[in-house]
Amino acid sequence: MGNSEVAEKGRLAKAAAFKLGLTSTAVKNHALELMADALDKNARAILAANAVDLEAGEKKELSRAFLDRLALDGKRLKEMIEGLNAVKALPDPIGEVLAEWERPNGLKIKKVRVPLGVIGIIYEARPNVTVDSAALCVKAGNAVILRGGSDAVQSNIEIAKTIAEAGFQAGLPANSIQLIADTRRETAEELMAAREFVDVLVPRGGRSLIQTVVQKSTIPVIETGEGNCHAYVEMTADLKMAVEIVYNAKVSRPSVCNAIETLLIDKDVAAVFIPPLFKKLREAGVELRGDAETRKIDPAVKAATDEDWSTEFLALILAVKVVRDTDDAIAHINKYGTKHSETIITKDDKAAKKFTDEVDAAAVYVNASTRFTDGFEFGFGAEIGISTQKLHARGPLGLPELTSYKYIIHGSGQVRT
Amino acid sequence: MGNSEVAEKGRLAKAAAFKLGLTSTAVKNHALELMADALDKNARAILAANAVDLEAGEKKELSRAFLDRLALDGKRLKEMIEGLNAVKALPDPIGEVLAEWERPNGLKIKKVRVPLGVIGIIYEARPNVTVDSAALCVKAGNAVILRGGSDAVQSNIEIAKTIAEAGFQAGLPANSIQLIADTRRETAEELMAAREFVDVLVPRGGRSLIQTVVQKSTIPVIETGEGNCHAYVEMTADLKMAVEIVYNAKVSRPSVCNAIETLLIDKDVAAVFIPPLFKKLREAGVELRGDAETRKIDPAVKAATDEDWSTEFLALILAVKVVRDTDDAIAHINKYGTKHSETIITKDDKAAKKFTDEVDAAAVYVNASTRFTDGFEFGFGAEIGISTQKLHARGPLGLPELTSYKYIIHGSGQVRT
Repeated sequence: MGNSEVAEKGRLAKAAAFKLGLTSTAVKNHALELMADALDKNARAILAANAVDLEAGEKKELSRAFLDRLALDGKRLKEMIEGLNAVKALPDPIGEVLAEWERPNGLKIKKVRVPLGVIGIIYEARPNVTVDSAALCVKAGNAVILRGGSDAVQSNIEIAKTIAEAGFQAGLPANSIQLIADTRRETAEELMAAREFVDVLVPRGGRSLIQTVVQKSTIPVIETGEGNCHAYVEMTADLKMAVEIVYNAKVSRPSVCNAIETLLIDKDVAAVFIPPLFKKLREAGVELRGDAETRKIDPAVKAATDEDWSTEFLALILAVKVVRDTDDAIAHINKYGTKHSETIITKDDKAAKKFTDEVDAAAVYVNASTRFTDGFEFGFGAEIGISTQKLHARGPLGLPELTSYKYIIHGSGQVRT
Repeated sequence: MGNSEVAEKGRLAKAAAFKLGLTSTAVKNHALELMADALDKNARAILAANAVDLEAGEKKELSRAFLDRLALDGKRLKEMIEGLNAVKALPDPIGEVLAEWERPNGLKIKKVRVPLGVIGIIYEARPNVTVDSAALCVKAGNAVILRGGSDAVQSNIEIAKTIAEAGFQAGLPANSIQLIADTRRETAEELMAAREFVDVLVPRGGRSLIQTVVQKSTIPVIETGEGNCHAYVEMTADLKMAVEIVYNAKVSRPSVCNAIETLLIDKDVAAVFIPPLFKKLREAGVELRGDAETRKIDPAVKAATDEDWSTEFLALILAVKVVRDTDDAIAHINKYGTKHSETIITKDDKAAKKFTDEVDAAAVYVNASTRFTDGFEFGFGAEIGISTQKLHARGPLGLPELTSYKYIIHGSGQVRT
């Protein structure tokens, strides 16, 4: 690699990571404190930079939803500051002894938690990701290279400068937090190939971003976020409970990955369950798309296409399918799901066990909303995303998931025979 | 994907993995037993197939070392059988509850160990990998797709057929163990892109194989094996112990990844340490390549080139460098090492702590040979390789490292507010 911005910052990040792995908890916590203070003090400049991004976004006629994710105000800045305080309050995972044993030959083996090293974050238009990711990476002893989207670049530059300087003042190694300011596609691709400097890449954003990173990266990736989640109402379900759970899982925040996109209903309860549920969903503005059986019960429902079963709508749209039994529901989920979050509503322990055993997903629920798949709701505190892959970590990625381990072995001259 | 061998076997493996994840420990152990019996019973056909590979290899004028790795005999078959028994004796990791807690809202969360799913193994000419890998994958509930090298193809076909049939007879799902018989480069590349079917890819072999997989795979990879390992003789070292450790780490089995390739010696002890050590190494046939300081002490040593510092010789060659101090040694290791195994010989606890804290490797030793980085020596039993990456698992990959986990959450109607 040459002297590009990515190569230069990669080199600096690697040097920073070496020192950051040896930095005390007290210094890391002090850094998070000063970062919070600095965001507060520099609020005016950050909001001004954000206004520049917003104006450019409006000129480009970006969607309302997009501009909403991009927009900062006093409240969102306050949430970012609270996020820093929450990470500060979490226990430092580094140095934890995960296991310790002695071998018959006297070798003493310790498995100790260490940082991953340099983490690259590739994300889109939400400037809060800049703060959240940096905070979690640094607390887990990792240097971070942030590469946000072009539409948030002024906001990200101002935020990254603010928190990086504050961290450095608190005693963090120089270059622990860096932003790639060049937002051309080529720099993202260069980062995906920077194996020499970057240990792990975490894409945060929509399907197409994640797929691009997965396809192009030669660095180990933690895939996050795509959630084509399902609720399955089994024949013995408490139907009142089922209405509440389905409603919550679809309506409470349709734009997030742990919302459901498809509802599966046991054929034996479909005729009773559908009318009150659909009434409530329609009142909340939910568009319903159903299979033939669903449309027999409620002919006003639009026909679902095959594509609907595999779509993460991230909107007030729900696909509905009547299934024969629990096996049928599990087969549908394992075919179309993205291994994120799935729930069964049932009173039958055997059906529940079958579902939790056989559904292949990070989080499998019985009688609860899928919306709980979240670092805070699990009790982990802040998280950097929800992993939908099986390697390394699954589900909410908190601090321990941003670490690796090493074996430290003490001997007294042992050699192998 | 179309109807190629890879696509077809991928589909079958995915279906097998679903069932294998639900298969009892008793059935899996019975399968390992019948596989061992079948290898024994079918020894003649396996050795005949191996003879065909060996003859072809000799015609192609493959190297002696290569043909030696390829060759099977009664002793090697017996080792494969013993390997199956060793895996049988290991505890089944699947279903283990890794953590369990209740949230204030009454949600009961369990973190449960589950298989990875379908594991692809891409390897070179050692037919024993066929048996070892299949045994470990199956015991951890994973379906396996084996893709060995072309030079061992007849041996692999016969071995895979033998153990797959025996496993099926014992009650394993059909297609739990499959071999890709087409050994063209294209099929390996197709396997590296078969994200739809394969959850994890483990390359086992030399640097070039591993680098190809890392560069081309879109499936998560566990990098294994490349070991450019170092021993560092610190100034306070017990020099007699140091001679024994260096000798063992270099000479006991130079062709394996946990052997050392470079020796670093503190400048204060170099003049005393080098003469007796080099005498002993030369008697064992070790070729020495040294830096300028080393050659001042022993002018008969050949000059080391810059390339020598980053070469995994896998042979009786040792590069030797005199270093200023522990910092200098650590900097050299972190620059040239492959994050495998590193050792310091010292009586100074502070130097030892600095070394174990700051060296970035899977296994960091104090006063012991690097040759202990091995599943059996760590007490894990059989292993599928030594991971040199930081994501997912580091060091020996035993059964638990071939698993993932899921969260199972039981509620009583909880919805998120």
